[in-house]
Amino acid sequence: MPDALPSDLLDRLSALLGPRGLLTDPADIAPHLVDWRNLFQGSSPAVVRPASTAEVAGVVRLCAEAGVPVVPQGGNTSMVAGATPDESGRAVVVALTRMNRLRDLDVTDMTMTADAGLVLKAAQDAAEQAGALFPLSLGAEGTATIGGVLSTNAGGNTTVRYGNARELMLGLEVVLPDGSVWNGLRRLRKDNTGYALRHLFVGAEGTLGIVTAAVLRLFPRPRDTALAFCAVADEDAALALFRRFRDRDESAVRAFEYMSGQGVDFAVRHIEGVTLPLSERADHYVLVDLASPRGDAGLRGMAESVLEEALEASEVLDATIADSDAAAKKLWRIREEHPEAQKREGASVKNDVSVPVSKVPEMIRRCSAALQALIPGSRPVPFGHIGDGNIHMNLEQPEGMDPAEFLARSHDIMDCVNAVVRDLDGSFSAEHGIGRLKTDMMAEWRGGAELAAMRAIKAALDPKGLMNPGKVLP
Amino acid sequence: MPDALPSDLLDRLSALLGPRGLLTDPADIAPHLVDWRNLFQGSSPAVVRPASTAEVAGVVRLCAEAGVPVVPQGGNTSMVAGATPDESGRAVVVALTRMNRLRDLDVTDMTMTADAGLVLKAAQDAAEQAGALFPLSLGAEGTATIGGVLSTNAGGNTTVRYGNARELMLGLEVVLPDGSVWNGLRRLRKDNTGYALRHLFVGAEGTLGIVTAAVLRLFPRPRDTALAFCAVADEDAALALFRRFRDRDESAVRAFEYMSGQGVDFAVRHIEGVTLPLSERADHYVLVDLASPRGDAGLRGMAESVLEEALEASEVLDATIADSDAAAKKLWRIREEHPEAQKREGASVKNDVSVPVSKVPEMIRRCSAALQALIPGSRPVPFGHIGDGNIHMNLEQPEGMDPAEFLARSHDIMDCVNAVVRDLDGSFSAEHGIGRLKTDMMAEWRGGAELAAMRAIKAALDPKGLMNPGKVLP
Repeated sequence: MPDALPSDLLDRLSALLGPRGLLTDPADIAPHLVDWRNLFQGSSPAVVRPASTAEVAGVVRLCAEAGVPVVPQGGNTSMVAGATPDESGRAVVVALTRMNRLRDLDVTDMTMTADAGLVLKAAQDAAEQAGALFPLSLGAEGTATIGGVLSTNAGGNTTVRYGNARELMLGLEVVLPDGSVWNGLRRLRKDNTGYALRHLFVGAEGTLGIVTAAVLRLFPRPRDTALAFCAVADEDAALALFRRFRDRDESAVRAFEYMSGQGVDFAVRHIEGVTLPLSERADHYVLVDLASPRGDAGLRGMAESVLEEALEASEVLDATIADSDAAAKKLWRIREEHPEAQKREGASVKNDVSVPVSKVPEMIRRCSAALQALIPGSRPVPFGHIGDGNIHMNLEQPEGMDPAEFLARSHDIMDCVNAVVRDLDGSFSAEHGIGRLKTDMMAEWRGGAELAAMRAIKAALDPKGLMNPGKVLP
Repeated sequence: MPDALPSDLLDRLSALLGPRGLLTDPADIAPHLVDWRNLFQGSSPAVVRPASTAEVAGVVRLCAEAGVPVVPQGGNTSMVAGATPDESGRAVVVALTRMNRLRDLDVTDMTMTADAGLVLKAAQDAAEQAGALFPLSLGAEGTATIGGVLSTNAGGNTTVRYGNARELMLGLEVVLPDGSVWNGLRRLRKDNTGYALRHLFVGAEGTLGIVTAAVLRLFPRPRDTALAFCAVADEDAALALFRRFRDRDESAVRAFEYMSGQGVDFAVRHIEGVTLPLSERADHYVLVDLASPRGDAGLRGMAESVLEEALEASEVLDATIADSDAAAKKLWRIREEHPEAQKREGASVKNDVSVPVSKVPEMIRRCSAALQALIPGSRPVPFGHIGDGNIHMNLEQPEGMDPAEFLARSHDIMDCVNAVVRDLDGSFSAEHGIGRLKTDMMAEWRGGAELAAMRAIKAALDPKGLMNPGKVLP
């Protein structure tokens, strides 16, 4: 374990943070050095665990003075290695999980103010206890933190209704690269007073400063819901059905998820308790999740009416509507178990891409064909948020192929998908961000004036380049 | 008329833009030099009228090379003198109104791509013709442009439901201060690839670059509506009623406007066709505007049910629900004619402030008392968007006072309101921006780390300081 810290920095950090606030034992540090997907093994001489904004500011100031990089870390669930240090052993990890207070919750303002280290699930629970809804919901919600989901502008299943993390944020508190603190914890719906700094830090993955707290938006809880699982004719029919529901009442569409026959087959095959809820297998399915705060919204009736139209138009082949919360949960599991089912089927490569909503069918078809041509026998498993244009265009290995041999083609597979996505004016990272994994794609996709502007901003706010170096920008 | 331009710049601009693209005749230029509210008389040697993004880029490049400032201008309806040049006569005005094409509209993506110079009303109309809704709506919509409403992050009556201009924008095309063009016209709902540049230009009032086009979000059109005009017990009752409607179905609340008895009195007194729709005068009123894309939303019934609860709780004293579109329009006029009615009553001072929603009642009460203490006999006319916490805390002169004498107290009046707003963690500019009028308040309200970060960004992107100088930043 290299120790590249200036000799007295550890003493100063120790004096600032006390014994609970500074980890230097390699065994304690280890979990903070590997990213969620085990892609990179980093190194660091110390993990600090500040308990307050003032302590974060002190850490950043001390490190800035010593020329030592800092890597902010929340739940460490980045899919793109955004929250772990590199191999140099030069950077101090700033773990924010001790800062986990809910500072304030107000159901008139419909806001809550949370420390950055508060776990997303705890934030959801606090809102629920107050009779309100914090709608951000994603797989890692039991571990991911508020600071992390904001720094990565996390998405999830309900983005189609409530937006990404960005849209759920009204204000921020940020420790800037020089150790100064910006208190932007405003709970204002309207405030046009200068540049939108808060939006600059959301999605910046800690490269411009460390988010220490945020004001988040709350919503009324749903009192009526309906969930339908549908077999649809093809990708176009899936999109057409989305349009039918959106046009009927866009604010009732809480989630709208596409699944391929292949993916549902895997879930049924590998996951206990998952069964196909329709009498016949199909090549394409969608899950329609409706919700409204109105108890008398009549969403089941609305779903029946829309599905009837779509059946008549031959878009929908068959459908079932959950008749209880337990049945709804069971239908959702078919979608939620996709990652696990893919893992059990063998090796797979993930692609978190987005295109304009209108181009989703073409994207799925073209990517699937190109991937099967690239690796004969490989099995595309596209699934995800059709209403956001965000499809996880994953690829499962051919049956019987050596997994290692398949994974050796990962870059070819990603390139293959990205070529189609680029041609359709899409994005190579819809909701996972750039982290360390995708920095080398920034120049090609966001180069020229855009990357130049980003670099200028980075240099202006972090002239020493000490904030989460090697992330986001190439 | 001063002409401080380098001698050959006009020739180059003329060669680039042709005769229709360059105005130098003082009579042609004059309308571009005075702001909407006639607060400042600026000066300029030339107004350029580029017809394309390439021409805007050419203008900015030529001016940058010559060290000449540029002032972008759309409909020139800024309430804070944000789009007019200063008195130095050094700046070229870049009028974008010839760039008024709708580039694209797609009802599957629910987006439209518009040139910056397209008038807001024309954008609304284009969406309507396609069967969709572009919800941004404000007083100046017949003149204000898409580039202007984005550069100022304009609000309006429907912000409580659809958000400010910022929330309606998916992508931008911007000419940067060096004349390079950033094409960020993505129509993606999810795209986490680096810093949120698009959000930096929204609300920057042209000080970081010139917005030349934007991708805007569309929504399904309402098929059911209901409008109620209510007398309420006091400011707290107004807020309580908002909560009742929001909790019932927040997505149905298209607008929720507070009006004082004083303001309604003025409208009834001065505006032909405006009458009080209730049998008795009250001190406080609200307008509740409900809308849903669901034809069977039953909003009238919902309004009746909520109002009944509120009547029983003595929050609502009396209420009427419009029984036709014409009746609804007539009720809206009471609110919309507030500015005109105030003008006819005499001199008034406007304050565009916001506070957290929960603090609106206290803000109105404390400001009203403080203003009446400051100028005995003066008449507070608070009205506006209670659901956004954005109240126009206006003050009408005392009866019989010399208007000039009253207006001489403008700064005292604004200071008086702002002191209360600041104490309540509010904003001194909710939806109008900073422009030139409010720059001197930035240091006090947004100083320290925040203003330092804004200045660093400005210097990084516009190192010569040529983009709309003297606006936003002090």
